Amino acid sequence: MDALFETVSGFTTTGASILIDPALLGRGMLFWRSFTHWIGGMGVIVLMMAILPAESGRSIHILRAEMPGPIIGKLVPRLRDTAKILYVIYFVLTALQIVLLACGDMPLFDSVVHAFGSAGTGGFGIKASSIGGYSAYSQWVIAVFMLLFGVNFNVYQLIVMRRARSALHSSEMWCYFAIIAVAVLVITLNILPMFPSFSEALRHAFFQVSSISTTTGYATTDFNLWPGLSKTILVLLMFIGACAGSTAGGLKVSRVMMLFKSVRRDLKRIMHPRSVGSVHLEGKRVDDATLSGVGAYFVLYMICIALVCLFLSFEPFSMETNFTATVACFNNIGPGLDMVGPAANYAGYTDPSKIVLSLAMLFGRLEIYPLLVIFSPSTWSKKR
Amino acid sequence: MDALFETVSGFTTTGASILIDPALLGRGMLFWRSFTHWIGGMGVIVLMMAILPAESGRSIHILRAEMPGPIIGKLVPRLRDTAKILYVIYFVLTALQIVLLACGDMPLFDSVVHAFGSAGTGGFGIKASSIGGYSAYSQWVIAVFMLLFGVNFNVYQLIVMRRARSALHSSEMWCYFAIIAVAVLVITLNILPMFPSFSEALRHAFFQVSSISTTTGYATTDFNLWPGLSKTILVLLMFIGACAGSTAGGLKVSRVMMLFKSVRRDLKRIMHPRSVGSVHLEGKRVDDATLSGVGAYFVLYMICIALVCLFLSFEPFSMETNFTATVACFNNIGPGLDMVGPAANYAGYTDPSKIVLSLAMLFGRLEIYPLLVIFSPSTWSKKR
Repeated sequence: MDALFETVSGFTTTGASILIDPALLGRGMLFWRSFTHWIGGMGVIVLMMAILPAESGRSIHILRAEMPGPIIGKLVPRLRDTAKILYVIYFVLTALQIVLLACGDMPLFDSVVHAFGSAGTGGFGIKASSIGGYSAYSQWVIAVFMLLFGVNFNVYQLIVMRRARSALHSSEMWCYFAIIAVAVLVITLNILPMFPSFSEALRHAFFQVSSISTTTGYATTDFNLWPGLSKTILVLLMFIGACAGSTAGGLKVSRVMMLFKSVRRDLKRIMHPRSVGSVHLEGKRVDDATLSGVGAYFVLYMICIALVCLFLSFEPFSMETNFTATVACFNNIGPGLDMVGPAANYAGYTDPSKIVLSLAMLFGRLEIYPLLVIFSPSTWSKKR
Repeated sequence: MDALFETVSGFTTTGASILIDPALLGRGMLFWRSFTHWIGGMGVIVLMMAILPAESGRSIHILRAEMPGPIIGKLVPRLRDTAKILYVIYFVLTALQIVLLACGDMPLFDSVVHAFGSAGTGGFGIKASSIGGYSAYSQWVIAVFMLLFGVNFNVYQLIVMRRARSALHSSEMWCYFAIIAVAVLVITLNILPMFPSFSEALRHAFFQVSSISTTTGYATTDFNLWPGLSKTILVLLMFIGACAGSTAGGLKVSRVMMLFKSVRRDLKRIMHPRSVGSVHLEGKRVDDATLSGVGAYFVLYMICIALVCLFLSFEPFSMETNFTATVACFNNIGPGLDMVGPAANYAGYTDPSKIVLSLAMLFGRLEIYPLLVIFSPSTWSKKR
C-alpha cells in the first residue's frame, strides 16, 4: 500500500510521502521518485495536446475552460510542432534550473532531483528537511523556478515565437503574480517576529507561498509552527493553485477568476435587472456553457473534498490534520498542516485512508471528470 | 460589543452566546432573548411574502431559487391571505409545542422559551446544559418540532388547504428527511459505545442531527466529545441546512439538490455531447438563469466563509475552532466544535472577531446579496 501511495504521489506530482526519512532510500530510488514528477509534469503538457484537436464540440467545454489563454492551435499549424515547442521549453527551463543550482553550493545529484521536483511541481526531496538545509541562494533559485513553472506555458510559447507583447497581456499571469505578491507581503509581516531579519522572513515567506501556490510542496522551514493567519493563507492558496496550462494542480487561477467574475455578473444583474452582463477573460467573452461548466466543476470539487474528509474522519487525527491532508492530496501539494505538516508525513494513516488519499491525488490531478467517466457504468455498458 | 453579538445572535436565530451561564440572566432577559428568535423566524416568513409579488423579473432569480416548491401565490389570490395562513401555521405549531412540553415535566416558562427557540430555529436556552437536563420525553418533543420547523412552510399550507397529496410530492421534503435519516443512522452506530443503551444513543443522535440540520443549535450532550466521523457529519449538515421556505439557515436542501443536479447534467453532457440536459425540481424545469444564480451563490457563500476564517485566524484558537465558529455563525446554528462547542461559547473571541461573526450571522441569515447591495457604492450614488 505504501508503494502504491508513493507511486501515485510521484506521477500525480503530489509529493506526499509516507517515508520518515528519504535518507533510508538509495540514490537510484530517490532519482526515480523525482523522475516520476518530471514525467508527470510532461503528462500534463501531453494532456494539453490531446485536448487541442477537439477544439469545437460540446463535450470539452470544461477542458477548454482550463486554457483560456491565447490558443496555441492558432499559432502553429501542426499539432506536433506545438508539442515539440512546449517540450523544448520544459527541457530548457529544467536544464537552466539544474545549472543555476549546481553553480551554487548544491551537489549535481541534488540539483537534478530538485529541478525535477520543481519542474513537475512535485516536491519530493532527498532530505527530511526538504530544502531547509540548503543555502539561501539555492532556496531563492528553487522558489523562483517553482513560480515560473506555475505560469501558463502558452505564455512561454508566445515569447519563444517572438510575440512577447501578447504574452504580457495574459491577465491570468498577472492575477497569479498579484495573489503571490499579496500573500508574500502579509505572511512576511506575520512571521517577522519568528526570524532574525526581514530578509530571512521574506525568503521563507516567498519560498513557502511559491511552493504552495504552485502545488509543489517543498519547504524551507516548518510552516506548521507559523501563526494562524499565515497558515490560513497557505490553505487558501492550496485551493487556488497556479495558472491553467502549467504543471501545477489546484483549482487554477483562471478558474478562480471566472468564478469571481460570474459572481460579480450576478450581483450586477440583481442590482440592474435589465443589464445583460457578460464575463470576459483575456479579452475574449466567456460563453455561458463554459461558465456553468466552471461552476459545476467547483461544486463537484467541493463535494469530492467533503467526501474525502468524511472518509478520513475515521482516523483519530484532528480535523485540521484530516482537512489539510485532503486538500493537500486533492490539489497535489504534498504537505498539509498539523500531523501531515512539512516536518511530518502521511505514515500515520491506515491503509484504507492511504488508498482514498491516492485516489484523491488522481482525481485532483485529472480534474475529476475523466475518472468519473471511466468509472461510470454507462461508459462500459455501451462497449458491449 | 457583547450586547451587539447577543442581539444579532437572537434576531438572526443563530443562538450563539457569549454568556457562560444563562442562569446569570433574569427571567425577563431570558424571555426576551428567546422572543427575538421567534420574531426572527417570523421575519423569514415576512421575507417570503416580500418576494412573491415580483414573481416575474430577472432580478429575483436567486430568491425564487429558494422557493422551488409549489408556488403559494397561485393557491391564494391575495397576498395578505397567504401571510395570514403562514402566520397561523407558525402560531399553531409553536402553541402545540408549548402544550406538549408543558404536559411533560417541563415548567411552563421553560416550555415557552424552548418552543420559541425551536420555532425560530434559534437555540437560546435557559441552562448552560441546553436541553441536556430535561427528560427524554422533552428531548424527543423538541427534536421532532425542530425537524418540523425545518420543513418548507408551503407544505403545511398545502395541507391546511386540503391538498395533502401535492404536499406529499415535495421532493425537497423527502430529500431533507432522507439526509436526516442517514445521518442519524450513521451517528447512532458511531456513538453507540459512548452510551449505555441503543435508545439513548439514538435519542442523542436524532436530537443533534435535527438541531444542527435545522440550524437550531440546541444540545442534549457535548457532541464535541463524539468521534471524528460524527463531528464531520454534523459540520457537513451545518452547510446543508434545512428546507427553503422554513425558518432555518444554511444553504438549504433545495439549493444543494440543484447544485448536485447541475453537476449531474454537466457530467451527462461530457459523456453524451449531443444531449441537451435539463434540471428538474418538484416536477418543473429549472431554467438556466436560476441554475447559474444558485451556482454563483454557492461560490459567493464559500468566498464569505473563507474571508471570515481568514479574519478569525488572527485569534490564537485552533483551525477547527475558527472554521466551525465561522460555519456555525454564517449558517445561523450557534455552537460549533472545540473551543466553541456546545459546552463552551464565544466568550474567548476578541471584540473585532465578535463584530465579524455578528456580520457573518447577518450575511448568512439574509443570504448575502441584500447586504452586498446595501453596502455597494452604486446603490448610494444613484440616489443623489
